[in-house]
Amino acid sequence: MRILGIDPGYAIVGYGILDYKGNRFTPVDYGAILTYVHTPFNERLEKIYDDFTDIANKFSPDAMSIEKLFYHSNAKTVIDVSQARGVLLLAAQKCNIPIFEYTPLQVKQSVVGYGKAEKKQVQEMTRRILGLEKIPKPDDTADALAMAICHAHSAGSLMIDFSKTRKGI
Amino acid sequence: MRILGIDPGYAIVGYGILDYKGNRFTPVDYGAILTYVHTPFNERLEKIYDDFTDIANKFSPDAMSIEKLFYHSNAKTVIDVSQARGVLLLAAQKCNIPIFEYTPLQVKQSVVGYGKAEKKQVQEMTRRILGLEKIPKPDDTADALAMAICHAHSAGSLMIDFSKTRKGI
Repeated sequence: MRILGIDPGYAIVGYGILDYKGNRFTPVDYGAILTYVHTPFNERLEKIYDDFTDIANKFSPDAMSIEKLFYHSNAKTVIDVSQARGVLLLAAQKCNIPIFEYTPLQVKQSVVGYGKAEKKQVQEMTRRILGLEKIPKPDDTADALAMAICHAHSAGSLMIDFSKTRKGI
Repeated sequence: MRILGIDPGYAIVGYGILDYKGNRFTPVDYGAILTYVHTPFNERLEKIYDDFTDIANKFSPDAMSIEKLFYHSNAKTVIDVSQARGVLLLAAQKCNIPIFEYTPLQVKQSVVGYGKAEKKQVQEMTRRILGLEKIPKPDDTADALAMAICHAHSAGSLMIDFSKTRKGI
C-alpha cells in the first residue's frame, strides 16, 4: 500500500509518500509545497492544488492521510489553513484518492505509543521507523511522514461525517 | 459589468449574478448550490467546485464578490465553511475570475447605508434595488445578491494580502 501523508497549510504543505508492505516502510518521496507571501491568496491555493495534483499523478498513492483540524488560538491562521485544506481535499477527490483523517493525538499514539509525546519525539520516532539519517526538514515534511505512518498502523475509516447538518440539508 | 456574488458555505452556497450598467442593476440568475449531509465531505467539496464552475462557464462573470470570513463561535462550522470557501476561491481562480472580498459591515453600509442594519433590512433593500417581487430564498441567495450589489457600489480592491507570513516564507 502506498500512502501519501499531508500536513496541511497555506505557506507550507508538508508531504510524505511511503510504501508499506509486510510491516515494513519504504520512503518513496517527501518534501513540501511552498507558496509565497507576496502572492495573492487565490494564486497560492491554485499552486497548492496544481502541485498536489502533480505529486499524486507521479506517485499514484492508494490513500491520503491528512491531519484533522481543530479550532485553535489564531483566528486568522485557522481560516486560511482550513481554506488550503479544503483545496487539498478537493485535489485528492479529483485524483480519486481515498481520504483518511487523524487527530494529532492519534498520530502521537500511533508513532510514539504515547498521546502526550512531544513534537520532537514524534519526529525522532518517524526518523527511526523509516531508517532515515536525519529528521526531514521542514517540520511540516516530518509531520506529513508521521501522518502516513499513522495511517499504515491504523485500520482507518473513510472520511465520512454524518454529523454535519444544516436545517435538515 | 457582470458580478457574481457568493455567500460561502458547505451545505448551501448562495449565488447571485447581476449586470450593472449606468447605475442600474439587471438580475441575471440567482440560486444556491446544495450539498447533502449524508454525502462524504470531500464529495460535497467536489460538488461545490463543479457546480460553481458550471455557473461561471454559463454566465462568464467579470468579477466575484465573496464574503470575508471571521472567527466566530462555532468552531466546527468555521473550519468547514473555510474549507468550502477555499474551494470556491480555487474555482474562481481556475475560471480566471478576479476575486473581491467584503466584510458583512461593508455589505450593510453599501446596501442599506448603515453598518448596523439588521439582516432583514439588507434583504429588503436588496429586493428593492433589484426590483424583485419577493426576497429570494434561501437567505444565502439573498445574501449573495447583496454581496454583488456591494461590489458594484465599491471600487473594490483585488484580494491581495501581504500580511500572511510564516517564518519569512
